[in-house]
Amino acid sequence: MTDPLDTPTDRRPGGRTARVRAQVLDAVRAELAEGGHEGLTMEGVATRAGVHRATVYRRWRDVGGLLVDVIDAAGEIDWQPPDTGSLRGDLTALNQEIQESLVVQPSFAVALMAASFHSEQAARAQTRLWADRYAQCEILVERAIERGELPTRHTDARSLLIAATAPLYHQLVLLRAAPDPQLPARAAETAVLAAAAGAFSAHREEST
Amino acid sequence: MTDPLDTPTDRRPGGRTARVRAQVLDAVRAELAEGGHEGLTMEGVATRAGVHRATVYRRWRDVGGLLVDVIDAAGEIDWQPPDTGSLRGDLTALNQEIQESLVVQPSFAVALMAASFHSEQAARAQTRLWADRYAQCEILVERAIERGELPTRHTDARSLLIAATAPLYHQLVLLRAAPDPQLPARAAETAVLAAAAGAFSAHREEST
Repeated sequence: MTDPLDTPTDRRPGGRTARVRAQVLDAVRAELAEGGHEGLTMEGVATRAGVHRATVYRRWRDVGGLLVDVIDAAGEIDWQPPDTGSLRGDLTALNQEIQESLVVQPSFAVALMAASFHSEQAARAQTRLWADRYAQCEILVERAIERGELPTRHTDARSLLIAATAPLYHQLVLLRAAPDPQLPARAAETAVLAAAAGAFSAHREEST
Repeated sequence: MTDPLDTPTDRRPGGRTARVRAQVLDAVRAELAEGGHEGLTMEGVATRAGVHRATVYRRWRDVGGLLVDVIDAAGEIDWQPPDTGSLRGDLTALNQEIQESLVVQPSFAVALMAASFHSEQAARAQTRLWADRYAQCEILVERAIERGELPTRHTDARSLLIAATAPLYHQLVLLRAAPDPQLPARAAETAVLAAAAGAFSAHREEST
């Protein structure tokens, strides 16, 4: 028996292949948000998606495959880093987005982090996604350099971005603190003040 | 039948009660480190500890109970924050300790974080432990204020400590970056520079 999904017409963008993927990944997100990755099963996803189990097994093989694809799909979204006109404003807006994604109940972002502790495949996909997002955000630092907001053109953009955003993840995910509406701006300002004092100067690195 | 563990002589410090607890918690740490919390079972712990299963069930009830007690035991250790003579030195030493605990294979600290995503009891115990440790570390900031290292006596010690340590957890636990031997000092310096620029000034908070 030939697989109807493998016929050429079904592989066109927006065709049945894409539609089935969208349905299945929506179901994965919903199941993850409701029950965490521990509640994620091939059967539950197939049922919720209204897709035949055999199709889910054939295309995603196992729960790890579903996790990887849902993380990869998040990377395919046309996300743009904020552009507010100042580094402080950009980092604050970025942190607000992060805080929102971690605080919303249920949080898909937190469910993925939990899953990545248990699935090596999911962890690798998540690491890739995060690397992409931080790389995309380097433009915030480049624009700040162009505007003359930083003391040197040799600023380690990634370290600055990590310093700005890490307190959000630490407070909300690991320390499980109550969300603090001031934290996004506070953490952004801390990074900007440190950057102004030369904390992320790439030259410093060479001299140590 | 009376429980031999409940006789008064067994409840003295260092008595059989304490000895059984030590054996069981050692076993929990070893099982966690080897197999993560997913591999943690009452039976596995009892066998490894050489303690009767019934004793483990009676005193810890379930895996959540074991996790809580192993986290509480970590809080009972007479841990002292570093005292190197400077805020930068203290934060660097603290970060080195954190980096070591996260990088060591297998990492008990990472296993506990993973477990806390899945056990509400364990998460609460871990949050308490972390709150205690950060509270203990506030002395680093107080000493820096006494030494005149900070621009104001009104420095929010906790925010400073979170800023100094968060990049370690973010990089090593969530982003799964390779350990960077410079990171402990780098993250400490960033926090010190931001603090010198007034980032954690408690007055700032009132004016915003």
